[in-house]
Amino acid sequence: RVNGDRLWDSLMDMAKIGPGVAGGNNRQTLTDEDAEGRALFQSWCEAAGMTMGVDKMGTMFATRPGTDPDALPVYVGSHLDTQPTGGKYDGVLGVLAGLEVVRSMNDLGVKTKHPIVVTNWANEEGARFAPAMLASGVFAGVHSLDYAYGRKDPEGKTYGDELKRIGWLGDEEVGARKMHAYIEYHIEQGPILEAENKQIGVVTHCQGLWWLEFTLTGREAHTGSTPMNLRVNAGLAMSRIFEMVQDVAMSEQPGAVGGVGQVFFSPNSRNVLPGKVVFTVDIRTPSQEKLDRMRAKIEAEAAKICEALGVGCSVEAVGHFDPVTFDPTLVGRVRDAAERLGYSHMNIISGAGHDACWAAKVAPATMIMCPCVGGLSHNEAEEISKDWASAGCDVLLHAVLETAEV
Amino acid sequence: RVNGDRLWDSLMDMAKIGPGVAGGNNRQTLTDEDAEGRALFQSWCEAAGMTMGVDKMGTMFATRPGTDPDALPVYVGSHLDTQPTGGKYDGVLGVLAGLEVVRSMNDLGVKTKHPIVVTNWANEEGARFAPAMLASGVFAGVHSLDYAYGRKDPEGKTYGDELKRIGWLGDEEVGARKMHAYIEYHIEQGPILEAENKQIGVVTHCQGLWWLEFTLTGREAHTGSTPMNLRVNAGLAMSRIFEMVQDVAMSEQPGAVGGVGQVFFSPNSRNVLPGKVVFTVDIRTPSQEKLDRMRAKIEAEAAKICEALGVGCSVEAVGHFDPVTFDPTLVGRVRDAAERLGYSHMNIISGAGHDACWAAKVAPATMIMCPCVGGLSHNEAEEISKDWASAGCDVLLHAVLETAEV
Ligand SMILES: NC(=O)NCCC(=O)O
Ligand SMILES: NC(=O)NCCC(=O)O
Repeated sequence: RVNGDRLWDSLMDMAKIGPGVAGGNNRQTLTDEDAEGRALFQSWCEAAGMTMGVDKMGTMFATRPGTDPDALPVYVGSHLDTQPTGGKYDGVLGVLAGLEVVRSMNDLGVKTKHPIVVTNWANEEGARFAPAMLASGVFAGVHSLDYAYGRKDPEGKTYGDELKRIGWLGDEEVGARKMHAYIEYHIEQGPILEAENKQIGVVTHCQGLWWLEFTLTGREAHTGSTPMNLRVNAGLAMSRIFEMVQDVAMSEQPGAVGGVGQVFFSPNSRNVLPGKVVFTVDIRTPSQEKLDRMRAKIEAEAAKICEALGVGCSVEAVGHFDPVTFDPTLVGRVRDAAERLGYSHMNIISGAGHDACWAAKVAPATMIMCPCVGGLSHNEAEEISKDWASAGCDVLLHAVLETAEV
Repeated sequence: RVNGDRLWDSLMDMAKIGPGVAGGNNRQTLTDEDAEGRALFQSWCEAAGMTMGVDKMGTMFATRPGTDPDALPVYVGSHLDTQPTGGKYDGVLGVLAGLEVVRSMNDLGVKTKHPIVVTNWANEEGARFAPAMLASGVFAGVHSLDYAYGRKDPEGKTYGDELKRIGWLGDEEVGARKMHAYIEYHIEQGPILEAENKQIGVVTHCQGLWWLEFTLTGREAHTGSTPMNLRVNAGLAMSRIFEMVQDVAMSEQPGAVGGVGQVFFSPNSRNVLPGKVVFTVDIRTPSQEKLDRMRAKIEAEAAKICEALGVGCSVEAVGHFDPVTFDPTLVGRVRDAAERLGYSHMNIISGAGHDACWAAKVAPATMIMCPCVGGLSHNEAEEISKDWASAGCDVLLHAVLETAEV
């Protein structure tokens, strides 16, 4: 078993970097706080005897050597970046649990045939630069490096420029590394494990996603002197699209979600009807068929809504992944480890996207989940217990030992 | 008659300061561009033999002396500040037409019993600092100076600090000046005069307004892993309120409007359901009874909508004025001037708020309007013709001469 106190202390130390406003964290991708968090992680890895590699997307790979020079490494990890008002565990737990696995192996003097690599994937959240899981996506060949470098934050700064600015542009070609397996440990970010009173989620699938960025074009006009019948009201069209997305998601229950997290009004002045409204619809479901149907329905209905109001409507897909089925052998290994360790467990489908979803394209991959209080995540109040954290880390240790071959 | 070419040239010169992105202007209140526009106006006033006074709100008063030392001045003017994507004429026309009246009187060697004061009211638009017509509101005793100084822009900068920063904090007590009359010339900002093919709007009333700033509190949560039935969706509540405001305004037709120009989502990240949504509902109608009814209905319905979704809802009135009836004698004088000059005219109710609405609380006041193309305002594409501009300015000259007594 791992050292749960040490894991918890590291989580708390990392949480000091980029503190939020309500007990959580704001350590967004490629900010100064991100750089500081990376440096701390690097110092810990070096103290644990690992060597650090960094690729051209800024992803960090800390290697503990194996005994067989020809054996491909077993990768573990997740991400250290956070939402603007994020929690202390989303992503961070997976990275520091990977570190704890290595520290525990060092304590026990265990050697493995395959090297172990603890990974901090860059820009998993996609909050500052859409899409999410950007660096693992480039790694898996889903996006080009040029595409990734050109992604812009809301201020117009590019991923490429900001990566250089914070000093974490590495020299490794992205995706050049080959993986024996990838295992990611993450908090559930949903309410199921807690409600079912299970310590471990054995993650069998991940639901698919579309991020549909709508740009509605209305007619900028005075809110007071423009009669109702002469308005080209992009804000009203937006509100009808919100309601329609809700209806589409509800009509696909159970097992589908749809909502909107980001909205920009322009010029965003109280007495000006917006000339431009930009917002992103986020839809997810584990069923490929449903995912395709929801997207088609939403685009068709939005076009009708806008047409009826004379509002222009264009849609760009700024994020996408298909539903993922994780590797059955690794999934079984996680389930067996939980069983062997005496932890209650259940199969679960990941509601959120993870770097494991892209890694699954280039290697056998799976995930382990632990509960979080009230299912709350992407909220500074995100919370887990020390026991929950270390139970999942024990499972990770066992699954890694079996996969890396002692 | 005034010199229409000179008026137009001044309009075009002022439009060079704080250019917009699409042919209009961005010369928002208390920005460096505002300071530059003020300096240009001051230089023109001084060249026309006027002396400048500035009050503690930063409002500019340029005086052409009268012949009777005891006679109160006749005030004309409007505002030089603009929306973030504003037009070249909204407000500016009224200030520079006031200047043109003085220039024309200088050309003709006309003297008046009452002094003429050309006024540039500070922060009419209310785009950067709510509410609109802030300085004239303090002048009329509607707001305290402390209230005004404490108003914040979206970045949290206060009116008081920004006024000092741009160097236009004057020493006159706000509202110490007494007015014989106030006459404001403005573009209609609506479609009626153009549709009716009239050169002059004789403004009899101004509709009343409420700006209701809603703060909705949802539960920040992951858009992917939070099931539909566990969402506390403030964005959805907002969209239902938009639709309801539209319904309330439509149910009070004709003669009522309602809409939303400003929205802030927080944390405004694509994969986070908003924890906080702030937006401002703008409702207007010339009927006091309707205005009260609309506000009450909107607040009651919004509370129901939010309750049904478990969303917290608080409302702050960040702007308000009751419907205004302008001074009948001055209104008649404007109508007579239009008639005498041979300009087509009609009675009109102002759809927008104006400094004249507050001035009407402390002096006999009225307004003159000219058409604008397509009724478009609060849009960089706002347009008027040189003939329209100078026709209204002729009417202003006549109304002023009669009121200031030659
Ligand atoms: N795990 C996580 O929150 N990832 C961000 C990408 C997503 O929105 O699912
Ligand atoms: N005239 C004008 O646009 N004033 C701004 C205040 C308002 O919204 O009516």
